[in-house]
Amino acid sequence: MAVRALWFSRGALVILDQRELPQRTHLRRLTTLAGVADAIRTLAVRGAPSIGVAAAYGMVLASREGRYTPARAARLLGATRPTAVDLFHGIEAVRRAWADGADPLAAADAYKDRIVEECHRIGTAGAPLFRSTRRVLTHCNAGALATVEWGTALAPLRVARQRGAHLFVWVDETRPLLQGSRLTAWELAQERIPHAVIADNAAGHFFRTGQVDAVIVGADRIARNGDFANKIGTYEKAVLAHENGVPFYVAAPWSTFDARRARGTSIPVEERSEDEVLAFAGRPTAPRQSHARNPAFDVTPARYVTAFVTPSGVVRPRAVARALDRAA
Amino acid sequence: MAVRALWFSRGALVILDQRELPQRTHLRRLTTLAGVADAIRTLAVRGAPSIGVAAAYGMVLASREGRYTPARAARLLGATRPTAVDLFHGIEAVRRAWADGADPLAAADAYKDRIVEECHRIGTAGAPLFRSTRRVLTHCNAGALATVEWGTALAPLRVARQRGAHLFVWVDETRPLLQGSRLTAWELAQERIPHAVIADNAAGHFFRTGQVDAVIVGADRIARNGDFANKIGTYEKAVLAHENGVPFYVAAPWSTFDARRARGTSIPVEERSEDEVLAFAGRPTAPRQSHARNPAFDVTPARYVTAFVTPSGVVRPRAVARALDRAA
Repeated sequence: MAVRALWFSRGALVILDQRELPQRTHLRRLTTLAGVADAIRTLAVRGAPSIGVAAAYGMVLASREGRYTPARAARLLGATRPTAVDLFHGIEAVRRAWADGADPLAAADAYKDRIVEECHRIGTAGAPLFRSTRRVLTHCNAGALATVEWGTALAPLRVARQRGAHLFVWVDETRPLLQGSRLTAWELAQERIPHAVIADNAAGHFFRTGQVDAVIVGADRIARNGDFANKIGTYEKAVLAHENGVPFYVAAPWSTFDARRARGTSIPVEERSEDEVLAFAGRPTAPRQSHARNPAFDVTPARYVTAFVTPSGVVRPRAVARALDRAA
Repeated sequence: MAVRALWFSRGALVILDQRELPQRTHLRRLTTLAGVADAIRTLAVRGAPSIGVAAAYGMVLASREGRYTPARAARLLGATRPTAVDLFHGIEAVRRAWADGADPLAAADAYKDRIVEECHRIGTAGAPLFRSTRRVLTHCNAGALATVEWGTALAPLRVARQRGAHLFVWVDETRPLLQGSRLTAWELAQERIPHAVIADNAAGHFFRTGQVDAVIVGADRIARNGDFANKIGTYEKAVLAHENGVPFYVAAPWSTFDARRARGTSIPVEERSEDEVLAFAGRPTAPRQSHARNPAFDVTPARYVTAFVTPSGVVRPRAVARALDRAA
């Protein structure tokens, strides 16, 4: 793999600081729970599966600091971001091992290996959908940076390319934090995959003029009924795809499914600081007197989803609940 | 009026340089056709009606420079921006007077007065639509800056407020050039109208959660069948409003209607430099190797429009052609 988001090495969690891409590839060594919590909160590490793995290793570091109980460490890491359910899966996997006297690092490694393997299986399961598709749109970053390796949304595209597909990727820049232009474009550039960055506003124009053949995005949380939360703007693209008869796929590992949540409308949506909207690179973009609203996620109803691409195959929205019950 | 975009004074066209807002209110004096053409091309003056008025005064300046024929001056100014039809109306109004030996300045003043008066009548015609509406979303800037005074989309809101309506405005920031957060928010702040800037991606979330009661936007060109071109991203908001049962209004003076164009699909769409998408305030937002696409406008089919707000009243899309024939 050309891109890897984080790894554990010599007593530290090493992360590629995603706030500094694409200008700088800066590796940071984190050695404490507080450091990992801060990295998650400030988006140095982001993307639901990567957050889950980072939190798992945060639990490992906490177990070595000698100042936390497993429950307290889990609580502190769980408070960093409210929307992604992976966070809680990653924490829980290590908390259980730690509380049972097993090796926390082995539990975190196993959790990470499972995520990476699930993403690869997402790639294998989804690749046939893109065999004869040429122009694919994606939103935000659901690539290797978001999932340690492979990606969720980008995994089927990577596998399809390995199998000879000629793909072109429309990259929504994804305001306010530009995960599309900064991170997805960076990943695609690393692997020389043809792509064009567009303002989020321009996606509709390319849909309407027949220049988008499919959409694939990741997810932060998926409810039993197939409603799902993802980066703000995802709902807009789903409605536009639907309106223009373009298939809309959501790729996610099983850790992103929330088996106990009946519908998406109850998923908590994080609202972040208005400064992310009112300024850019330290320079104000709006008058001093203006306020902003900054929801970080939105919820897309299941009826706009053509299919979920999971590690066990392609699942229609109506079949999600059954698949979850079978997996449980 | 608190805000005025441009005026003619002592042999010069004075413009409020819209590229420098909201940081600086910088007035520039233009004394040549070349200066006006450059101001239009570089978006120092923007918004279809303002562009038309600026071009009209550009013709006046050309008539005094002694180096242009009316036809050549018209051709040079007409080449600055391809999408807005107002540009050609403004140029033509003065070209005719100049070619006929009449006073170009009187013709330009008359054109400007008509635009300002039409915008005020748009305000009067549209205000009743917002009598009991609380939360209105707008895209780009169709305010006084775009139309010399009053605005198109903002005129009905201004008049409704004078009549006691309590309005709150959602301001799409409008990437790539941020006309929403830089210009519309600035106009609203000048007049202390409550508003919040949002990333363009967030509009869908506020639609879906029932926090938008109506949408009003301007237009750059409207075809006989009611299809219209406007700032990139307008089509997306129109589809989302439609999907969520929210009325979608388009406000425009008659100069924005293109009586000879049957449908919107043939309207030329300007594609601007990819640098507007790949960098922000001189700082790159994407990898060096990445390319971008940057259509400045999109075309929204008439079926998404609830009504056009014109100087002669509120007109349903199906009635546009008849209204145009009557006005001709």
